[in-house]
Amino acid sequence: MKNTIGNSLSVTLFGESHGKAIGAVIDGIASGIPVDEAFIAARLSRRRPKDNLSTPRQEKDEFSILSGVFGGYTTGTPICITIPNADTHSQDYGEMQNKMRPSHADFSALCRYKGFEDYRGGGHFSGRITAALVAAAAFVIPALNKKGIYIGTHIKNIAGVLDNNFENNQDIIDVSKKDFPVLNDAVANKMQEKILAAKTNGDSVGGILETAVIGIPAGVGEPWFDTLEGLISHAVFSVPAVKGIEFGLGFDFAQKLGSEANDQMYVSDGEIKCYTNNNGGVVGGITNGMPIVFSAAIKPTPTIGKEQKTVDISTMTDTTLAARGRHDPCIVHRAAVVVESVTALVLADALSAKFGTDWLAQ
Amino acid sequence: MKNTIGNSLSVTLFGESHGKAIGAVIDGIASGIPVDEAFIAARLSRRRPKDNLSTPRQEKDEFSILSGVFGGYTTGTPICITIPNADTHSQDYGEMQNKMRPSHADFSALCRYKGFEDYRGGGHFSGRITAALVAAAAFVIPALNKKGIYIGTHIKNIAGVLDNNFENNQDIIDVSKKDFPVLNDAVANKMQEKILAAKTNGDSVGGILETAVIGIPAGVGEPWFDTLEGLISHAVFSVPAVKGIEFGLGFDFAQKLGSEANDQMYVSDGEIKCYTNNNGGVVGGITNGMPIVFSAAIKPTPTIGKEQKTVDISTMTDTTLAARGRHDPCIVHRAAVVVESVTALVLADALSAKFGTDWLAQ
Amino acid sequence: MKNTIGNSLSVTLFGESHGKAIGAVIDGIASGIPVDEAFIAARLSRRRPKDNLSTPRQEKDEFSILSGVFGGYTTGTPICITIPNADTHSQDYGEMQNKMRPSHADFSALCRYKGFEDYRGGGHFSGRITAALVAAAAFVIPALNKKGIYIGTHIKNIAGVLDNNFENNQDIIDVSKKDFPVLNDAVANKMQEKILAAKTNGDSVGGILETAVIGIPAGVGEPWFDTLEGLISHAVFSVPAVKGIEFGLGFDFAQKLGSEANDQMYVSDGEIKCYTNNNGGVVGGITNGMPIVFSAAIKPTPTIGKEQKTVDISTMTDTTLAARGRHDPCIVHRAAVVVESVTALVLADALSAKFGTDWLAQ
Amino acid sequence: MKNTIGNSLSVTLFGESHGKAIGAVIDGIASGIPVDEAFIAARLSRRRPKDNLSTPRQEKDEFSILSGVFGGYTTGTPICITIPNADTHSQDYGEMQNKMRPSHADFSALCRYKGFEDYRGGGHFSGRITAALVAAAAFVIPALNKKGIYIGTHIKNIAGVLDNNFENNQDIIDVSKKDFPVLNDAVANKMQEKILAAKTNGDSVGGILETAVIGIPAGVGEPWFDTLEGLISHAVFSVPAVKGIEFGLGFDFAQKLGSEANDQMYVSDGEIKCYTNNNGGVVGGITNGMPIVFSAAIKPTPTIGKEQKTVDISTMTDTTLAARGRHDPCIVHRAAVVVESVTALVLADALSAKFGTDWLAQ
Repeated sequence: MKNTIGNSLSVTLFGESHGKAIGAVIDGIASGIPVDEAFIAARLSRRRPKDNLSTPRQEKDEFSILSGVFGGYTTGTPICITIPNADTHSQDYGEMQNKMRPSHADFSALCRYKGFEDYRGGGHFSGRITAALVAAAAFVIPALNKKGIYIGTHIKNIAGVLDNNFENNQDIIDVSKKDFPVLNDAVANKMQEKILAAKTNGDSVGGILETAVIGIPAGVGEPWFDTLEGLISHAVFSVPAVKGIEFGLGFDFAQKLGSEANDQMYVSDGEIKCYTNNNGGVVGGITNGMPIVFSAAIKPTPTIGKEQKTVDISTMTDTTLAARGRHDPCIVHRAAVVVESVTALVLADALSAKFGTDWLAQ
Repeated sequence: MKNTIGNSLSVTLFGESHGKAIGAVIDGIASGIPVDEAFIAARLSRRRPKDNLSTPRQEKDEFSILSGVFGGYTTGTPICITIPNADTHSQDYGEMQNKMRPSHADFSALCRYKGFEDYRGGGHFSGRITAALVAAAAFVIPALNKKGIYIGTHIKNIAGVLDNNFENNQDIIDVSKKDFPVLNDAVANKMQEKILAAKTNGDSVGGILETAVIGIPAGVGEPWFDTLEGLISHAVFSVPAVKGIEFGLGFDFAQKLGSEANDQMYVSDGEIKCYTNNNGGVVGGITNGMPIVFSAAIKPTPTIGKEQKTVDISTMTDTTLAARGRHDPCIVHRAAVVVESVTALVLADALSAKFGTDWLAQ
Repeated sequence: MKNTIGNSLSVTLFGESHGKAIGAVIDGIASGIPVDEAFIAARLSRRRPKDNLSTPRQEKDEFSILSGVFGGYTTGTPICITIPNADTHSQDYGEMQNKMRPSHADFSALCRYKGFEDYRGGGHFSGRITAALVAAAAFVIPALNKKGIYIGTHIKNIAGVLDNNFENNQDIIDVSKKDFPVLNDAVANKMQEKILAAKTNGDSVGGILETAVIGIPAGVGEPWFDTLEGLISHAVFSVPAVKGIEFGLGFDFAQKLGSEANDQMYVSDGEIKCYTNNNGGVVGGITNGMPIVFSAAIKPTPTIGKEQKTVDISTMTDTTLAARGRHDPCIVHRAAVVVESVTALVLADALSAKFGTDWLAQ
Repeated sequence: MKNTIGNSLSVTLFGESHGKAIGAVIDGIASGIPVDEAFIAARLSRRRPKDNLSTPRQEKDEFSILSGVFGGYTTGTPICITIPNADTHSQDYGEMQNKMRPSHADFSALCRYKGFEDYRGGGHFSGRITAALVAAAAFVIPALNKKGIYIGTHIKNIAGVLDNNFENNQDIIDVSKKDFPVLNDAVANKMQEKILAAKTNGDSVGGILETAVIGIPAGVGEPWFDTLEGLISHAVFSVPAVKGIEFGLGFDFAQKLGSEANDQMYVSDGEIKCYTNNNGGVVGGITNGMPIVFSAAIKPTPTIGKEQKTVDISTMTDTTLAARGRHDPCIVHRAAVVVESVTALVLADALSAKFGTDWLAQ
């Protein structure tokens, strides 16, 4: 078991919420990819808490590229990018060193790391670490775009408020630039009301993100065991709070007959297409040329102000906890760019394996 | 990308539906595990089509252990187990060489392997290959059981007919021995009626499997990126027809407040437990000591007798196909033992990494 | 740690000397490579003991391809090839179950596998297993040849008798077809006399193999840590009895000045070449376009008829052993085709990573 | 192919000689290992050029631990350690951007990275990067020592001047602390005279390092393909300028009879030992409990002041080069601590795989 994603093109994350810096090392990237620092900054900005919907923690996300870039291009050797931590209020977490936050990683991390984990601000489990993930993906996304591959994630559902469905390719491209990524901007207010209502009550809400990818060629993936669904799900479950993933119809397949669910096929201008995309672009673990479409379920932020029953590990007794510190009443909207990012990294890896080390720069 | 599951303890599958044999190589298994051939046979029997709910293909599943076992125990060197193919009706598939079955892997495999794939009976994509997977897992399951780890999968839903929920540990153990694994035997008939109705109509049905694991210690998994959810989902998506997976409340988290969804904690006899198990036993990617619980969505079998629109790749024209050959109107019940098997392999791998090469035999 | 070589194109070996069969699984091979069964047989024949220089064990090496080949071409899915064991004299090894053969793997295997290893005939440590390795490589060698890549290994030294050096590319091609691979056939007799003299005395001899590869493009390898030297050496040390490897001048570099040792460069017809090849074709871990040249030291066969001091593990007392059973007085000549084979597999893996999954068939 | 060493415990290096910083990420390390910053500094000091035998480049090696350490102990999450670059004279390398240094990685890197590599000071191929490797190993060496495992490397040979052999365990421990690591201090002067003579002539010298490891239990390694020899050699070939490796007698085996070369065995106080250690502690790829002993050949530093024939890639014409810039007339003595470091990392990885994730801290 390891803390790296990808084989041909891999990313390792490091850092703790209140340590010196977080960062990522990207290995196996093609040489000669232009590096767009403004794009990296823009992606980090999408993830950054910036309004009353999120934690008041002020993150500047001023990154530093230590290696692997020369003269504005990737060199092909490992890239290390770091983001210093700032505005850390470690004192807020004193109580939480011993009181386990329910449904947070505090307790499972304690079991895994035996008390040596950096508990401040969630340590290595903090959503903060996803900034490094977003930065890493920002090195490969422009190269994917150049090949016609675009990835967009919208909020399908927050606390029961539903967005529209993807209608066309432009939707995917547009939504990947939004801070609060919905297709129907009219529902944004309703979702935000739900978030603010939860915040007012010291509570939190969850939701569902839907991601679509266009431009991936047919024939990517392996049957046993590196299915494209398996590779994507492996990565997406690392995004904090994700608890489910489904491709195409997903769980709704259970209610369908084969004759209703099958994606019937036709020839169009010499290409084979499907009338529907119930399989979400992957059949037998391998892409079929239709857009890849999947949804991820995000649980409500576990750290809440409401009092909850928990345990004090220093005394091994029952107690209660009403979390202080800064936390998000909802992370669904902020997680969209993170899901896009891990998807980009998985696809860049799979395509680099299929087409070779240099492909991403070609 | 590769066709192997696991790192410390790994399994590679090989074989095609109508080739000489299918099989598996298990590497990294501890030396000194007793090998129970009767148990392997019993597991294979659970997967085998055996009544009017399944394909009429008669599979004997007489396996042969070529290596890695000596004097009744694992030697610690790679085990190769093979299962010869028999009762293959390759002529049934002549038409399907050129006519792509909608929602089947025919077309994506063609794109991946460029026409060199063995198309007979689904080739390497056939559900038949899962027999080797089940056989491989049967080497580790008794060793896991000996340590108090049990894995059970029941049919939660077929075509809208629901089973009961897991109530206790014995349910998990009992259901792992059933051919038609439901907790409430009264619903079995209703599910089977749905299957037979679809069969009569040349159609098929899907469903949902729910898996529970007891006895896994807290502290297993990694935050980025080998979360236990990521490892399990990576493997489960290789089970043919799986299109979604969720842990604990999964997609229902989207409708919950944090205060409703969080698993509050208490001390019981010096151990830390949760009042609920909404997270399905994994928090922050790491086990918390509660049972691991997840559900997998299974799509309806894509090969159906009803006429469907498709393409003929030899002429690149539109056509229709009403599948002949032998096929299953439902694979949900047969997939249960396969999901249990991949789960067992993932856990044996994760635990061998955590506790060392020899642990599984200790 | 694992029993697999390669990442993009990988091979896993299985089997024991006196078990049902040995074999290999090849994963990640391109689809569409013609499979030449006569070539596989010819390669196996080169490795097979066939005269009074080797063990009298009669090995037929009748192989069976269970999967991954259809209509004479690789399908791109895992290939399993098996070779049944025959002519096993397990009774010869009764004494050796408890008496550890000095310098053989008996004792280290006992420590590794805790007594569960198949001790008959060396079990999984037998040179017999290399037949499966040779067979696996025979699937990729014709594809490499088609691209102008040829690998040849000659006996540089047996017991102090030296062969000539490689003079030209044809030498490499020619030597890869010989049963007793020397460049100067006049030295073969002298080497064989040394082998037979050792045999007569119940003793054994070692030697040095030299391998050359032509046709590898410049730019293959990684600086940290998958240097081409590191990848090749990792594999070559699995060939039984190899105890050293050196590239180009190797250990002779210690006696040279930089000005003597450096490979000075020039331009020839628009290509950059070196006047010498002291680096053996790899600089900074990466190929420079010159032939890859390396030597491997092979120790004398440890199983000998002469009496040696050893221990009896059943009584934990000192004893002596004069080995019975059939064994080789020298394995240097038989190892040549094995070193060629692992080299072919390493290169096919590295090139498949660099140029993509399908490259080997193009 | 990848730029990472190790699977269970892995290290990825990043950085270029004249970039912002070099560094390493260590993943998979046990939580709870005390971190000794003074020891890290002492190890870096051994590698640092510090007298007239080496480059005049002044390296401070002030490192910064960005993550993975909390309260003086490893947390078990990835450690990132960085070392800023200083005293870089990039202008010295202007000429060398186009003129390829013979036997240096300039040309093979150009082929690999297509001109996007950072050519300044050797970029990612600079021996400078080994500082990060030494720092990474310094996290695990004290933990290995605590378990009785010690690694020492001495200069066996520089330009033909020979050191004594290892006599006992204390030799190994003592030599691992020396800046100019010889067992017989009387030969140090003679070696240094050879180095200075070469320096005076604008030339360079090579040599041989010998490494011994004590305290490794028997039973570590795999037969196919992760032999301990294969794992160590894979890593050691990444140390710049290494061109050969041999275990125990190595290439001298070619001159021996089996009866001379075999390590005969005896029982001593209930333990099985060998009278000799010609196999260097590894048989069948697996440790046998004797010290691991191997030698590595180091070529003369390729960058020399003497004029050499080479090519100008900007004009694709023949030219000559007499290197300016600061370079080492010999790197053998400085490489000793690097070979110790990669050996420590390989062993820590193999032992963590065998005994589990937490073993190194126990």
